[in-house]
Amino acid sequence: MELSLNQWYKVLAPRPVVLISTVNLKGVSNAAPFSFVMPCSTEPPLVIFASDPDHHTVKNILETKDFVVNIPDREILKELWICAKDFPAGVSEIKKAGLTEEKSTKVKSPGIKECLAHFECKLFKKYLAGDHLLIVGKILQAYVRDEYFPGGKYLITRANPLMHIGGNEFGLLGKVIKAK
Amino acid sequence: MELSLNQWYKVLAPRPVVLISTVNLKGVSNAAPFSFVMPCSTEPPLVIFASDPDHHTVKNILETKDFVVNIPDREILKELWICAKDFPAGVSEIKKAGLTEEKSTKVKSPGIKECLAHFECKLFKKYLAGDHLLIVGKILQAYVRDEYFPGGKYLITRANPLMHIGGNEFGLLGKVIKAK
Repeated sequence: MELSLNQWYKVLAPRPVVLISTVNLKGVSNAAPFSFVMPCSTEPPLVIFASDPDHHTVKNILETKDFVVNIPDREILKELWICAKDFPAGVSEIKKAGLTEEKSTKVKSPGIKECLAHFECKLFKKYLAGDHLLIVGKILQAYVRDEYFPGGKYLITRANPLMHIGGNEFGLLGKVIKAK
Repeated sequence: MELSLNQWYKVLAPRPVVLISTVNLKGVSNAAPFSFVMPCSTEPPLVIFASDPDHHTVKNILETKDFVVNIPDREILKELWICAKDFPAGVSEIKKAGLTEEKSTKVKSPGIKECLAHFECKLFKKYLAGDHLLIVGKILQAYVRDEYFPGGKYLITRANPLMHIGGNEFGLLGKVIKAK
């Protein structure tokens, strides 16, 4: 059947969901979930996400030129959903959600302690694409929880990352299969 | 622990995987899997993916200015993996894999019949970002299998789309949970 051009993106799912944390020049932090996100280069290491250009996340990134991409797991779904709400500019979603800010090594934006991995990013480029702004970040430093990356192998089923399906529906990884 | 900047993208997973089908001006079709892919605008409807700039997919898109994004399911993992191999320029991966080309409505590139959804795209923009080329497509027409989209709701657990974890490892959707 024909799929409405308002709906097509629902079928490009589930998508990884990340929490992007930022801070403005007044020191007010912010975090919001995004699922229009992907790696886009290995050397240099670049990540890209698409945002409403008016989002606080974008405003903060344009002020400080940096952000942190945090990978949430199943344990903080409730907190992630609080971060998705629209709070006034002076309010930190991270605090509202009861999450913990963690000082970053190479950027002003804080990470979120409860997330299983963090990528500290410097704004690399931005492009307007339709109704979203594409933000490309260069990863300066990356961290993952020790127990999920023993011997250089990511134990994804143990990490249990959240994926976004649509609206308030999220998915968890089920079976892992190998192509031959 | 610190995560090597060669490895960070392994933790931004699982990612949706798509088969991108194209054709060159000589009429030779091509299909290849990509998992650096995301929606990037709703109005106009835009999809973006990142590719090695030397990939046949990119060469074909630059020739014809169009491509089709196909959503594969669990049933065609083996065929998708054949499409991931490097065949000479004159060989159609679609035929090699035993998949079926389907004439598109609005673009020259064919769709792949065995996939659960198809988005016919016109090249909208391209940007070089590090070692990958970002290809943005405007979706002109989208199709999904009837049984997966009754009454405007995507039955994702029935559709059983493939996700990419890394290398030859793919994931299937497990539990679906709702945020409150």
